[in-house]
Amino acid sequence: MAIREEIHDLATRAARAAETLGDLNTSVKNAWLLRAAECLEAAKSEILEANERDMSEARENGTPEPLVNRLGLSGGKWEDMIQGLKDVAALPDPVGEITDSVLRPNGLRVSRMRIPLGVIAMIYESRPNVTVDAAALCLKAGNAVVLRGGSEAFHSNQALGKVLRQAARDTGIPEDAIGVVATTDREAIDVMMKLNREIDLIIPRGGPGLIRKVTENSTIPVISHDAGVCHIFIDASAEADMATAIVRDSKMRQMAVCNGLETLLVHRDASSTVLPQVLKALHEEGVEIRGDAETCAVFSEARPASEDDWAAEYLDKILAVKVVDDIHAAIEHVRRYGSDHTEVIVTNDYANGLLWQRRVSSSTVGVNCSTAFADGFRLGLGAEIGISTSKLHAYGPMGLEGLTTRKFVLTGEGQLRE
Amino acid sequence: MAIREEIHDLATRAARAAETLGDLNTSVKNAWLLRAAECLEAAKSEILEANERDMSEARENGTPEPLVNRLGLSGGKWEDMIQGLKDVAALPDPVGEITDSVLRPNGLRVSRMRIPLGVIAMIYESRPNVTVDAAALCLKAGNAVVLRGGSEAFHSNQALGKVLRQAARDTGIPEDAIGVVATTDREAIDVMMKLNREIDLIIPRGGPGLIRKVTENSTIPVISHDAGVCHIFIDASAEADMATAIVRDSKMRQMAVCNGLETLLVHRDASSTVLPQVLKALHEEGVEIRGDAETCAVFSEARPASEDDWAAEYLDKILAVKVVDDIHAAIEHVRRYGSDHTEVIVTNDYANGLLWQRRVSSSTVGVNCSTAFADGFRLGLGAEIGISTSKLHAYGPMGLEGLTTRKFVLTGEGQLRE
Repeated sequence: MAIREEIHDLATRAARAAETLGDLNTSVKNAWLLRAAECLEAAKSEILEANERDMSEARENGTPEPLVNRLGLSGGKWEDMIQGLKDVAALPDPVGEITDSVLRPNGLRVSRMRIPLGVIAMIYESRPNVTVDAAALCLKAGNAVVLRGGSEAFHSNQALGKVLRQAARDTGIPEDAIGVVATTDREAIDVMMKLNREIDLIIPRGGPGLIRKVTENSTIPVISHDAGVCHIFIDASAEADMATAIVRDSKMRQMAVCNGLETLLVHRDASSTVLPQVLKALHEEGVEIRGDAETCAVFSEARPASEDDWAAEYLDKILAVKVVDDIHAAIEHVRRYGSDHTEVIVTNDYANGLLWQRRVSSSTVGVNCSTAFADGFRLGLGAEIGISTSKLHAYGPMGLEGLTTRKFVLTGEGQLRE
Repeated sequence: MAIREEIHDLATRAARAAETLGDLNTSVKNAWLLRAAECLEAAKSEILEANERDMSEARENGTPEPLVNRLGLSGGKWEDMIQGLKDVAALPDPVGEITDSVLRPNGLRVSRMRIPLGVIAMIYESRPNVTVDAAALCLKAGNAVVLRGGSEAFHSNQALGKVLRQAARDTGIPEDAIGVVATTDREAIDVMMKLNREIDLIIPRGGPGLIRKVTENSTIPVISHDAGVCHIFIDASAEADMATAIVRDSKMRQMAVCNGLETLLVHRDASSTVLPQVLKALHEEGVEIRGDAETCAVFSEARPASEDDWAAEYLDKILAVKVVDDIHAAIEHVRRYGSDHTEVIVTNDYANGLLWQRRVSSSTVGVNCSTAFADGFRLGLGAEIGISTSKLHAYGPMGLEGLTTRKFVLTGEGQLRE
């Protein structure tokens, strides 16, 4: 079958399956999740063999070792993946929830009922565990999925998809609810992006090239998991130890995460008091400091920052640092260079704390806490399918609720408008 | 200035204005709405003169009289437009609302705060009162707007826009919050659709050609106000008088509305009892009945329907009618031919009423009421900017809340993740 027909067929079968998924009882969906965990354990050696094949092919192609490691499924990552399925089973089911139910003056009851979106296409790169995580969240929210992982994880994704479909058959769910693209040809993405009759939402997760390609060409609504150029602003009233601990946690916890700190802004009044202590702590842990002139003046190990540094998502042991006049200048800087991900103020000034929360329009805005809390688990969503930095539908960490919508339900006794 | 630069400049200035709109107190936004009503009254003769010019140019271009009438702003339409501003002023302000506020186990408070989307572009055809209605709703929700009305209403839209900007200046709101495209060149739309850095949402309202063009080419998220192929299903247990009244209200209230009835489905057991009475009532009011074979057999004035009739949005005195086996066949028909707008069942069967509400996934799903209730005012939203038939962000009638999003707000005392 030509790729065009193959992808169209996959999406059509997913759309057909989606018609019945919205009406599944929670217990059936949970049975699938738990059965999938069992089936994965049973097929573990087969899956890890496929995974090993992806990794050795990647090495043969000269892929750098850190990227090869991201492909790996064994050890702790395997256990996390299995536990993830059980965790999603334990989450409350958003589908069917009725809210905002009112009796209108004419006696007509108007309510909103939460329903699935329909068919969700995920286009992702590298880590094959996304195949399992994404299918689990989408199906728990009553959606069918079409999964298109990266070519570098092809064998792993095929092996995982096969098991997820097997678990569906075992629990009476149409296996077409989990569609796995069986080609590495990039034409598959071009075809998928135009199937707006079959697919309701497309979620790209990957590098800027992929995100741009999908945003610019998709005729299907897109929610993208985009860059995180996260800021912390140390206000004049910030307490030095708290500022140091928050900056350290935000920068050092893990490098390749979108909620990591990239640019530190500091109120001028704190630049000679709090700032040197903060930067010393980071520098001792091997972080390269790229500062503006005032930063370099108070911290001699800093290198001068260039204009590019203010917009950089380093995902590495590098930090851009700038001294600003006040909270307004900090907010202006975030507006100009930020990516609407996560911005935190460290302050002991009541009015400034409120001002920051109100005026900064990023998807997560914090006072006196680590940027690392911008995460679906940590914010209490239970799990996340990604972090959206565009404002439509879902903004910030996106959990089960973000994979649903609400319809209006009217209950009448013969009400007419005229 | 070339069109490209002109539109880019308009959007950039709107984005700059939007930075401060989210923080405006409700009283300031309401003052603008009421001042706009005053300014419109003061400029009434000037506006109606511009409107008269659009109408006479339309007549000279051979525009059919019903379409020329849609352009008109005088009489009741003027009063409705003025009253609309006052009504929006009276609506509760969605911005700043805090919900889902919880204390996490580590003492971090996590809340959701409702904020504006930013800049909303409206592309619309024909009726110039949309200029005022759309600006009112968008600004009340804290957004800037870029308005691009149809060339046939150019002079009216320019005159209205000028007054809305005047009212902004009078009340201390940046006038750039209301951007009105000052050209009829269609290149303006092509440019607008690609400004995804400046514009957060694009709402096309118009014919299928416009909707398709924007959906297929926009790099900005789109919420479209699309077709309404609405259905009523008369179940076996339906009471004949209620069915007749509901069908009549849904079909006859007004022809050119998207929530009007287009296809009537009837349970076979009601086809010889209820159906003839329903069709007789419509036929007497001049409705052409296009039925399947069974319909034609019980109602001799019916003409045979063709396949095209099942997907038609007539917006006219025509009704497609089909006899089906049962509620499941009716749901299947709606899935195949419907447009996710509004579907109503008339029934006295408890289980079928619940089944319809649960299984039909259109944006408005009703039991024993007119399809004409699919309307922001009638459903209690206060007002609507359109009715969305795609599931992302807003589904169904879209009011002030649909013009906002929610960010995560974290309140800590030094919480770290590690």
